[in-house]
Amino acid sequence: MVIPSLIEHKRDGRPLAPDQWAELIRAYAAGAVPDYQMSALLMAVYFRGLEPAELAALTDAMIDTGDRLRFDGLPIPVADKHSTGGVGDKVSLLLAPMVASCGVAVPMMSGRGLGHTGGTLDKLESIPGFRTQLSLREAREQVERLGCAMLGQTPEIAPADKRLYALRDVTATVESIPLIASSIMSKKLAEGLNGLVLDVKTGSGAFLTDTARALELARTMIGLGEARGCPTVALLTAMDRPLGRACGNALEVEEAIEGLRGGGPADLMEVTYALAAEMLVLVRAARDLADARRRLEEAVASGRALETFARIIEAQGGNPKVVEDPGVLPQAQAVEVYRADRGGVVQAVEPRRIGRAIVALGGGRMAVEDGVDPTVGFVITVKPGDPVRAGEPIASVFARDSAGVALGMRALGEAVAIGDSGYLTPLVSHRITVRGVELLAEHA
Amino acid sequence: MVIPSLIEHKRDGRPLAPDQWAELIRAYAAGAVPDYQMSALLMAVYFRGLEPAELAALTDAMIDTGDRLRFDGLPIPVADKHSTGGVGDKVSLLLAPMVASCGVAVPMMSGRGLGHTGGTLDKLESIPGFRTQLSLREAREQVERLGCAMLGQTPEIAPADKRLYALRDVTATVESIPLIASSIMSKKLAEGLNGLVLDVKTGSGAFLTDTARALELARTMIGLGEARGCPTVALLTAMDRPLGRACGNALEVEEAIEGLRGGGPADLMEVTYALAAEMLVLVRAARDLADARRRLEEAVASGRALETFARIIEAQGGNPKVVEDPGVLPQAQAVEVYRADRGGVVQAVEPRRIGRAIVALGGGRMAVEDGVDPTVGFVITVKPGDPVRAGEPIASVFARDSAGVALGMRALGEAVAIGDSGYLTPLVSHRITVRGVELLAEHA
Repeated sequence: MVIPSLIEHKRDGRPLAPDQWAELIRAYAAGAVPDYQMSALLMAVYFRGLEPAELAALTDAMIDTGDRLRFDGLPIPVADKHSTGGVGDKVSLLLAPMVASCGVAVPMMSGRGLGHTGGTLDKLESIPGFRTQLSLREAREQVERLGCAMLGQTPEIAPADKRLYALRDVTATVESIPLIASSIMSKKLAEGLNGLVLDVKTGSGAFLTDTARALELARTMIGLGEARGCPTVALLTAMDRPLGRACGNALEVEEAIEGLRGGGPADLMEVTYALAAEMLVLVRAARDLADARRRLEEAVASGRALETFARIIEAQGGNPKVVEDPGVLPQAQAVEVYRADRGGVVQAVEPRRIGRAIVALGGGRMAVEDGVDPTVGFVITVKPGDPVRAGEPIASVFARDSAGVALGMRALGEAVAIGDSGYLTPLVSHRITVRGVELLAEHA
Repeated sequence: MVIPSLIEHKRDGRPLAPDQWAELIRAYAAGAVPDYQMSALLMAVYFRGLEPAELAALTDAMIDTGDRLRFDGLPIPVADKHSTGGVGDKVSLLLAPMVASCGVAVPMMSGRGLGHTGGTLDKLESIPGFRTQLSLREAREQVERLGCAMLGQTPEIAPADKRLYALRDVTATVESIPLIASSIMSKKLAEGLNGLVLDVKTGSGAFLTDTARALELARTMIGLGEARGCPTVALLTAMDRPLGRACGNALEVEEAIEGLRGGGPADLMEVTYALAAEMLVLVRAARDLADARRRLEEAVASGRALETFARIIEAQGGNPKVVEDPGVLPQAQAVEVYRADRGGVVQAVEPRRIGRAIVALGGGRMAVEDGVDPTVGFVITVKPGDPVRAGEPIASVFARDSAGVALGMRALGEAVAIGDSGYLTPLVSHRITVRGVELLAEHA
């Protein structure tokens, strides 16, 4: 295998053969292909794309560099959800125990926050003692016992993807739809799933801001999943404003628990139910979406979902009392209320501005190795389209000190726009299956 | 400087600021930018190109990573020639002493053969004892004393280019016109020249096979040279057949000496005189091209050019007797004559096929660190358009042994096509100056 010839081939817009991808990724994982050749190839892929056969071969090759979760003896189906990431997106924290309470195993492998978006692992780790670094064996045993484990990407799963992603992150080759799709799907398809639901965010705070690209990503991932025997459905959900009210690690855990207790902001619950219902239907744990919804609501109303979350927390070393008493979570030292600077209608709550402010407050990462402060963040109680009165409290800043409060107040001033009119874009706009795209809601 | 942001900027088709290029190349030369980021950026440049201000900044930055030749006290002008490379192209060996004999200093920094094209350094080193690795100081002193030095790229000249070129070679980012132009010009502009002539090859054996791309490269390099106070002219010359008759290191030295003695194949002499005359005019060592031609012919006829070559060889440790007695050169062990397999007209002599066969015979490189056998190669006495009789001797193979001879005979069989008709494309087709492109000859 002559790597410069492969790069040249791709550079010139010709597809590589599936076995060339397989050999290349195997060699890369073995350390036999230098990063400087791989990054040049990735940039060529950025410009030229990948044909379906190449994408499939790349994804399979990445899976094959590692181990897989196997649930061969398990009497219940296995499903998972993946989100492309957003601000205030604590859906996984609610959805995993809800779906597990309905008799579906959820081996949920999540990531950390990077850039302006948060990460499920960081949120979970704000629960005192919670341990996300499980081995594949621990994860498998816990899923068999409790129906759910919530863990970080283990070194055994798709190690080539882990190395490739780190390389893409520093070489401006992240924003390529086939590379995003193969990275996500190589991890998810290694989980031994019977069904996968994708939450593809769109809007100014999403990774892919425009709907056409988000749809293309969804279709690409669904094609990969279905071709590998994993029924896959995607929902396009709004990320032009934060999801729910809480943004910041411990604050989001608190809001997730509120949701599992039957409360929770309407938009958060709507997205969570919509995604969870798809999971139940995909693995035939429910007849249809309405039946699934009923089962999920019952799991919440009965307290089973909350109880499952408590057992997961306990099994992973965390303090399960948190589900009764949010005071168990670390608390911010400085809190201040933010008030509307004029009367009118909320025009925008910019998620990127909020996400970046959380990073600046110490609650997110500049670099992979950075630690995060779980206590900082925002609670924003208004959405675009909401009428507000001048001086009305519409948000709170949670910070370490008065300097953080000042920074947070400035960020809210920039993120929250109030004008004479405003409207809310649809929360769940498209449903994408292997059969096509279903428009669920039109823009106003 | 955040490198991923710079790469992203370029990837998205936006120019980098000149000081960003300067800082980037400075940091790369200092080892502070990893190759994997640089190769991703180079691939983005391959797709997006460089704006003139970027190209200028990149070139200047590469020059500034190293030292320059300076000839401040020299009473005569300084000029050089660069060729984009071909098969049988021994022009430098004749041109440097010819121009130096006409009162113009020639600090000629050349390269080695790589791929199917030969390199001046390899040719010179076939002269027993000849040393091409001169220090900048040695080169300067020899130019001041003899009017000419013929040397390899020293580590002091544009070291960033050296590292970048090595990286481009293994990441399929060589074939980018701005990157080619900046690489060539960063080395040439560090030579302290008053004039530069470029021999841009076109045709199947050239680096850039099509005329439009060759013209674009010529114009790009001329723009760079002129903007930096170095008058620059380019000629487009034919590389759809080898130049001259000899192809192979020692064989080409022998043919060059034949040329300096007043013989030499007509096409080789024509290209050499055309390029050399441009050099004399550029630095005002001749009134016009006709005057320059007269002076150059006189330098050859009088023996001064040959004498200058002998003194250069002697100064650089080589055996100067070679100019009188080609028997001083190493000789091939096995020689065989190749005859026309049919009567007719020569249709093609494919330079790439010949160049690759020289590599296969041991006379060229697969990798930078390979040594070369100076003795092997071909002498091909026909050109496209020449009538031939069946069985007429039209070439010779020079090899190490009978296996090499067989390989060489097969290569000739593939490279030399004889049919019912054929024609010769113009040898020197275009002249490009800062004022525009002059068509010198139309295709038949």
